[in-house]
Amino acid sequence: MNPHTKGLAASRFVPVDHASVRFPRGFWKHWHDTVRDVTVPTQYMRLEEEKFLEVLDFKSPPGPLARPIQPSGLSMQHFFDSDFGKWIEAASYMLKYQRNADIEAKIDDIVDRLEEGQMPDGYLNSWFIRREPEKRWTNLRDLHEMYSMGHLLEGAVAYYEATGKRKFLDIMSKCVDHIIDTFGTEEGKLRGYDAHEEIEIALIKLYKITGDPRHLRQASFFVDERGQMPSYYDDEARRRGEEPDDYIFETYAYSQAHKPVREQTEVEGHAVRATYLFSAMADLAFETGDDSLRAALETLFGHLTSKLLYVTGGIGSSKDNEGFTREYDLPNETAYAETCASIALGFWTHRMAQTVLDARYTDILELVAFNGALSGIGLDGHSYFYENPLESHGQHRRWQWHYCPCCPTNIARFIASIGSYHYTAKENALAVHLYSDNSVTLALGGTEVAVTQSTDYPWDTDVSFAIDPATPADFDLSLRIPGWCKGARLSVNGEDIDLSAVTERGYATISRTWSAGDTVTLHLPMPVERLYAHPDATENAGRVALKRGPVVYCVEQADVGVPPQHLILSADDTFEAEFRPDLLGGATVLTGPALKMNASEWQGALYQGSKPTTEPVTVTAIPYHLWANRDAGGMLVWMMER
Amino acid sequence: MNPHTKGLAASRFVPVDHASVRFPRGFWKHWHDTVRDVTVPTQYMRLEEEKFLEVLDFKSPPGPLARPIQPSGLSMQHFFDSDFGKWIEAASYMLKYQRNADIEAKIDDIVDRLEEGQMPDGYLNSWFIRREPEKRWTNLRDLHEMYSMGHLLEGAVAYYEATGKRKFLDIMSKCVDHIIDTFGTEEGKLRGYDAHEEIEIALIKLYKITGDPRHLRQASFFVDERGQMPSYYDDEARRRGEEPDDYIFETYAYSQAHKPVREQTEVEGHAVRATYLFSAMADLAFETGDDSLRAALETLFGHLTSKLLYVTGGIGSSKDNEGFTREYDLPNETAYAETCASIALGFWTHRMAQTVLDARYTDILELVAFNGALSGIGLDGHSYFYENPLESHGQHRRWQWHYCPCCPTNIARFIASIGSYHYTAKENALAVHLYSDNSVTLALGGTEVAVTQSTDYPWDTDVSFAIDPATPADFDLSLRIPGWCKGARLSVNGEDIDLSAVTERGYATISRTWSAGDTVTLHLPMPVERLYAHPDATENAGRVALKRGPVVYCVEQADVGVPPQHLILSADDTFEAEFRPDLLGGATVLTGPALKMNASEWQGALYQGSKPTTEPVTVTAIPYHLWANRDAGGMLVWMMER
Repeated sequence: MNPHTKGLAASRFVPVDHASVRFPRGFWKHWHDTVRDVTVPTQYMRLEEEKFLEVLDFKSPPGPLARPIQPSGLSMQHFFDSDFGKWIEAASYMLKYQRNADIEAKIDDIVDRLEEGQMPDGYLNSWFIRREPEKRWTNLRDLHEMYSMGHLLEGAVAYYEATGKRKFLDIMSKCVDHIIDTFGTEEGKLRGYDAHEEIEIALIKLYKITGDPRHLRQASFFVDERGQMPSYYDDEARRRGEEPDDYIFETYAYSQAHKPVREQTEVEGHAVRATYLFSAMADLAFETGDDSLRAALETLFGHLTSKLLYVTGGIGSSKDNEGFTREYDLPNETAYAETCASIALGFWTHRMAQTVLDARYTDILELVAFNGALSGIGLDGHSYFYENPLESHGQHRRWQWHYCPCCPTNIARFIASIGSYHYTAKENALAVHLYSDNSVTLALGGTEVAVTQSTDYPWDTDVSFAIDPATPADFDLSLRIPGWCKGARLSVNGEDIDLSAVTERGYATISRTWSAGDTVTLHLPMPVERLYAHPDATENAGRVALKRGPVVYCVEQADVGVPPQHLILSADDTFEAEFRPDLLGGATVLTGPALKMNASEWQGALYQGSKPTTEPVTVTAIPYHLWANRDAGGMLVWMMER
Repeated sequence: MNPHTKGLAASRFVPVDHASVRFPRGFWKHWHDTVRDVTVPTQYMRLEEEKFLEVLDFKSPPGPLARPIQPSGLSMQHFFDSDFGKWIEAASYMLKYQRNADIEAKIDDIVDRLEEGQMPDGYLNSWFIRREPEKRWTNLRDLHEMYSMGHLLEGAVAYYEATGKRKFLDIMSKCVDHIIDTFGTEEGKLRGYDAHEEIEIALIKLYKITGDPRHLRQASFFVDERGQMPSYYDDEARRRGEEPDDYIFETYAYSQAHKPVREQTEVEGHAVRATYLFSAMADLAFETGDDSLRAALETLFGHLTSKLLYVTGGIGSSKDNEGFTREYDLPNETAYAETCASIALGFWTHRMAQTVLDARYTDILELVAFNGALSGIGLDGHSYFYENPLESHGQHRRWQWHYCPCCPTNIARFIASIGSYHYTAKENALAVHLYSDNSVTLALGGTEVAVTQSTDYPWDTDVSFAIDPATPADFDLSLRIPGWCKGARLSVNGEDIDLSAVTERGYATISRTWSAGDTVTLHLPMPVERLYAHPDATENAGRVALKRGPVVYCVEQADVGVPPQHLILSADDTFEAEFRPDLLGGATVLTGPALKMNASEWQGALYQGSKPTTEPVTVTAIPYHLWANRDAGGMLVWMMER
């Protein structure tokens, strides 16, 4: 915990230091170890192979463009800084667990090169410095200038927190000073804000270290200025000699800049941008107590979860705008559902639960953590999905790297810091949001407390907590009772607790004096659930999704031998859950009966006058997040049901 | 009939002159009259309003671009010539029925301006002459240079045939001479061919007028050269200083230029390009007797109809390439199914049936004529669809004009010439492909014969033919027995014919001496059919399409009050057909029971654990081609079925 948040922690829930949470066994051990041992090192290799780091050769003239310029005027190379910034952040989260000279040398080298390239006034963006210095700050609408700076800043904060080394932080603080000098309401400053939100989150992270009100104020400025009319982007376009109406994405809703943020009631536009903005708004609401921001977020959260959310936690249906379309438009095979967007939905919902402890938010955090975000990385730790469709005919394969590699480093930093998503704490209370086998040590009720979760969750229904304070201590322990769970049971030292009496907004709170050896047991029944979509979500009409506990399932051709689109479940049949230690690293699968349509009788016809005949088969469904780790083949979440 | 085909007509089936077929009542009367009275005049207005004709202001410097340049290097304005070329063609088909001084003055003016702009060497393309004369013939891969010329040439042929005026034909013949001088296998000529097929069809139409073997040979050259390796497009790109691998559509299969046409076994790429090519190949097979072309087309036809064809006759699933994707990939809501592509499928299949009279081909012609092509024009005759999806949530509305207006003029020329698709004839035989109320007069068996179809087909099951030769004459009358029809009955002068004895390849042939007053009656039972898709066409799994006779049906929200995606049919229920004179200009609708899912019980949730409850409703289905002529709302062809 940093000096600044230490002070605040007395009165309000803040996330625990991720590195105080360890995963010696259980669900996250594989993912956490793999990110440290495979993902972080291989991503550095990719950054080198794919020439990302060449953008830091400030002494050499820029080489040929690594990526072509898009019709928007943007090339991926415009924001290469963000990719190594995010890699540094992920690597740093692991360094906080264990220092690593080799990784640090690589980061230190990047930092040295950034220092070398930084302009005397603090400006730091490799694209503009090397290629288009005259275009600095001329196109916030299209070119991700502060988005890149924001990711460098997040990396700098994480590296400082992991190692205590200040150099990168100082470089980025100087860049922030330049940003503050450039943008603001004061005479002579620009009233602009980056169309791809990110700098706001980063500034608040900086503020949590520095306590410098200028850093918080700058984040507030960017959020408050967003969407004010007349639009900064119109003025800016005219200054470039362009017609504002020629904007390629047509509406500033693409960047949530079509109206002031407090007036936005519907989630629109680019999904990652939206959720980065909402995360920053939640941070600001927390830091400043601004209820108007919270109220707006509450409306937006309701809109998203009731109209726009895939059952997997994916968001953003369309590749055209990488974002939201009309309500209930949730196509499965063409779902964009970008990994980054699900992760950012985790960022946002986790932040929402800091101000108001409410399981509505953290249920979504859990949903993305076990499904739509985690599906973005392969079991091997070095293959990825950018898009996370809910149906495939085998055309979707995990990539070693991306044309736009924002997702690989995002999932790396999310898993590397997954500990901090498990718990928030204040002086005399601990809230548990995520369940998994792990242990955390933290200060609570005036003493040091070790809390250990022993469980095979999400495969198993039971979570045992060992609460070990150094000395007996009074504090509240709040446990999330998942919204998906009916019939949860809770006991302390073997004594049942009446959940209805202690549960508020989905959290059961036990207030007592805790002593070493106390145990809490939480039982969360996980029958196989059948989920049906609202009739307006027409892609899923006549279809059913299988879910058990927090885990959404899919059927893969690898298990059933035919395209899962040929299968029909019966609403009356039961699926059984079974843990298979040898399958995909160990997972609980669901098995049950189905009917398989016969394709052979069609004899080359495309249409015929009689229904396909069927024959009985047994179907195995696997956790959605584990799909596409075997041979290419069909995959389906929403199964036909009769 | 023109001099050249008159000679050939003795031995082989050729289409009758479209203007010999009249539609005094019945199905086509509305469409035919509307195209003449509304579509042709309003399209000229659009060409003026939208500045299409300004490209012919050869004396003025070119104004600002009416359309931006695409990433491919193409702007729509590159091929504006094709749009008024096709408009002239449609208008001319109507002029052949009845001359019209006003329309002719407009065409003559365009022709005068084309003459003014034509280069001394015959070259004629308004884009290149006015804007980029130095780029003539440098990029056949991307810029539609001969595509535009082809449509002007088709317009010129039609205008000549309608009016006898030679000027436009002479201009375009001079342009063709220039093409022949430029492209060919001879030393010093380029071995290129346009990536958007069209000039081939036009050259064969010219050949049918001129009988000049050079015109046929040039079409053959373009077809034979297509896809030869090393690719002309590679060489041409290098000559432009570009890397061939940077081709934006990635594969020359986009233009059917990835391998020689006779080696192509799968239908790939841009759907209109493909079907224009196949139409030209069918023409060449007919004109030259080249069986290798026919064999290739037969394979391609089998591939298309068994793997790639929408039940409506739409083709080309994806907007990304305006064309074909993987086999069985037939998404409904995002179906591209361009109007032009269905029309061109009509062109192709009609041509296939010239060489081999086989109802497999003309069944598809009928399918597009009553469904996927006709859906491209609104009942008002001046609103259009470019894409013809099989599902909508109300977002699809007919347009007054298109950004790329290829479809409006295409459907106009198709309907204007629909008479010629009804019949092919040779000296002593008449083949009837399409049924509708109409009359045709032609030479058969050495005398003039009037054939009158009296019928309310496709609404009614019975077609009566009055055969009236000027003097008794021997000839064959071949009637298509549609592939969709079970239990057809045929009688001549009240005497039943044993269909199995006289039917070959789907055509029942009556050979006799015909006298005035002879009547033939064809009964084609049209129970309401339920069609099911091959299980690999997974978008339609668990779904049913309703069809009656040649007409595919859809359900519109306008008739059922709720999104049709909320409805579930039962496999056991029966739908009744009923003609409604007051509905959408008069049409047979289908009515039957269904269940409606209740959306109200969801109370804002997106997913819930229980199936939606249902309540019974009565469903009305309308002909697909009539959809989107009322208020915006949902539409669905493939209905859920339990």
